[in-house]
Amino acid sequence: MSRPTPHVLVDPEILDRNVDAMQAAANRAGLALRPHAKTHKSLEVARRQLAAGAVGLTVATVAEAEVFAEVCDDLFIAYPLWVDDERAARLRDVLSRASVAVGVDSVESTSHLAPLASAGLRVRIEVDSGHHRSGVPAASAAEVATAAADAGLTVDGVFTFPGHSYSPDARASAAADERRELAAAREALLAAGLTCDAVSGGSTPSVEFADGDVLTEVRPGVYALGDAQQWELGVVSPADVALTVVATVVGRYPDRVVLDAGSKVLGADRASYATGHGRLLDHPDARIVALSEHHATVTGFDAPRGTRVRVVPNHVCTTVNLADAYVVGDATWPVDARGANT
Amino acid sequence: MSRPTPHVLVDPEILDRNVDAMQAAANRAGLALRPHAKTHKSLEVARRQLAAGAVGLTVATVAEAEVFAEVCDDLFIAYPLWVDDERAARLRDVLSRASVAVGVDSVESTSHLAPLASAGLRVRIEVDSGHHRSGVPAASAAEVATAAADAGLTVDGVFTFPGHSYSPDARASAAADERRELAAAREALLAAGLTCDAVSGGSTPSVEFADGDVLTEVRPGVYALGDAQQWELGVVSPADVALTVVATVVGRYPDRVVLDAGSKVLGADRASYATGHGRLLDHPDARIVALSEHHATVTGFDAPRGTRVRVVPNHVCTTVNLADAYVVGDATWPVDARGANT
Repeated sequence: MSRPTPHVLVDPEILDRNVDAMQAAANRAGLALRPHAKTHKSLEVARRQLAAGAVGLTVATVAEAEVFAEVCDDLFIAYPLWVDDERAARLRDVLSRASVAVGVDSVESTSHLAPLASAGLRVRIEVDSGHHRSGVPAASAAEVATAAADAGLTVDGVFTFPGHSYSPDARASAAADERRELAAAREALLAAGLTCDAVSGGSTPSVEFADGDVLTEVRPGVYALGDAQQWELGVVSPADVALTVVATVVGRYPDRVVLDAGSKVLGADRASYATGHGRLLDHPDARIVALSEHHATVTGFDAPRGTRVRVVPNHVCTTVNLADAYVVGDATWPVDARGANT
Repeated sequence: MSRPTPHVLVDPEILDRNVDAMQAAANRAGLALRPHAKTHKSLEVARRQLAAGAVGLTVATVAEAEVFAEVCDDLFIAYPLWVDDERAARLRDVLSRASVAVGVDSVESTSHLAPLASAGLRVRIEVDSGHHRSGVPAASAAEVATAAADAGLTVDGVFTFPGHSYSPDARASAAADERRELAAAREALLAAGLTCDAVSGGSTPSVEFADGDVLTEVRPGVYALGDAQQWELGVVSPADVALTVVATVVGRYPDRVVLDAGSKVLGADRASYATGHGRLLDHPDARIVALSEHHATVTGFDAPRGTRVRVVPNHVCTTVNLADAYVVGDATWPVDARGANT
C-alpha cells in the first residue's frame, strides 16, 4: 500500500547536488561554509554537508548543539544565548564533545558566559547589519568584545544575519550591508587590540553576493532543501527543490480543489512577497489561496479526488520542524533535532 | 534548576474551568458537546472533557482517531477523507474500538467509503455554510446523502464548520449562516426520505450563538486552552487562557526586547485581525512585531535579559502540534497526537 499523505519527501540526488554546488561556490569565493543545521535538523544531511567540505555546522539552540555534536566537532550557536545554570550545564557537556562558539551581543551576557571560559567556550560578537532583530551596531562591537575578553572568554570574531535579504529587491543590498558592517566591526576589534579570526555572514538569499575579501565564512541553511520562498525570490529554480510535501486532492469544487496538507505539515509562514501558502512543484500556475490546519485551498489547478501532488512549502525550516521523519525513496531519515528549541 | 525556555505551560485549574463552563453552556442550550481534540491532542485533556459530559470527540484525521480511541468510544472525523486501501485498513481498526462517523461531501467519495459500511462506518454530509473550504451547498446535501445510503452507509446527519466566524464582526452572522444552511440541509435529507439525527456545527467564536432549535451538537476546540486569536476576537479574556509559552528575554535594545520563543514553538499563524504574532499575558500593551524561528521581537515592553514572560500564541492548535509535552506544575502531559496528520 502506498505511504499515507501528507508526508515529507526528500530527493537525495537533488539534495546532494545542492550541497555540492554551495560548497563549490564557497570554495571559489574563498569562504568557509558552515551550513545552518536548523533548516534540515538531520544528522544524515549534516554528514553529507561535512563530507562535502563544510568546516562545521551552525545551530540555533543548545538543544540542537547537543544533537549535532554526534556528527560534528565544530559548532557555532549563532544566537544570543541567555545562559542560566541549566543551560550552562548543558553547554559544558557539549564542550566536552565539540569545539563551541556562541553569539553574544551585550556586555551583560558576557558575565553569564564567563564560567564557561575554562571549558573552552568561544564567543562571536553579533552585529546588526540591518535586520534589526538582535546584534549590536558595529561601533559597539569592541565594547562587547573587550568585556568578553576581560571575562576570560576567547573572542574569535564577529557575525551577522542579514535577514533583510529575504526580499525580492534587497538581496544584493543586504549583502553589501553585511559586508560593510562586518568590516567595521572587525576593524573595531582590531583597533581595540583584539584579534578577529572569524568574520561570518551569509544567508541563502545573500550568499551569492558574498566574497572572501571581508568575510571568512558563510552560514546558509535553506539552500540544501529549497523552498517556495527561495523559488519566489529567484534564488533557486523549482528543479533545485529537494523537499516537498506529498498531498492528496480530497475536495474538488467548481472554483478550487482542496488538498490534505495544511499548516500542521507545511507550516504557516507567509512572507509579504509570497504568492500564496506554498507552491505546487509540478503546477507552477496553481496558487494555494488559503491554508487551514489540514486543508490547502488551491486555485488555478484541477484534478480528481485521490490525485497526489507535491507541495513546496513556503519556508522549509518550519516544515521540517513539524515532521518526525523524511521519506527518502523506500527509507526514512529521522528529523533528529525536531522540536529542539531550548 | 528551572525548566529551560521556551516551554508550553498549561494551568490545569483554568483548563478545568473552561471545560466545565463550555459543558454548562451546551447543556443550557440543549446541545451535545463534542469537543475538537485537534486543539489539545492530549488524552488527559480529552478525559477531562468526557468526564465533564462531552458525548464524544471530534478529530481531523484517522491518525488522531487512532490515538483518541484509547479514551473515547464515539469519534467523529470531521474531514472529507479520501479513503484509499491504506486508510481503509486503519479505519477498520479504529471501528473495532469505537463508533466512528466521517465527513463526506461528494458522491464520488461514498463509493470509496462503501466497503467500510459492514464495519459500521457512519457518514455525515458536510455543508458549506459560508467558509468556502470543503462541503456542499445545502441544496446538494440530499444527493450525496442518497448516494451514501445507496452504498449501504448509515447517514446520521449533517455538519458544517463556520470558519468565517474567525473575524471580529462575523461571529453572530456566521452562526446565523450555520443555522440556516444546516436547517436547509436537514430538510433536504428528510424530503429525500432519509433521517437526520445529527445536526452538528459550532466553533469557539460562534458557539455562544448556537441553540438547540436546529443544531443537536457543537464542536468547539480552542475554548479549552484559549489563545490570542480568541482574546483579540473578544471570545475569551486573558484570565481564561490556560496555555502559554514561557519565554526568556534574550535581547534588550533601545526600541525593543527579543524573546527566545519563535515560530518553531509558537507557530506562525497570524490572522488579518491579529495585532501581532501573539500576546504577552501579563503585559497587554506589548506587541510581538516580528517573529523568526527562535526570536520574538517585542515592542511596548521592557525588561532585563533573563526575565521570563508568558506568551499567548495566536493559534493554540498549531502551537500544541509543535510541542512534545505540556508542562503542568511539576508534571508533564504528553501531546499524544502531535504530528498525527495522516
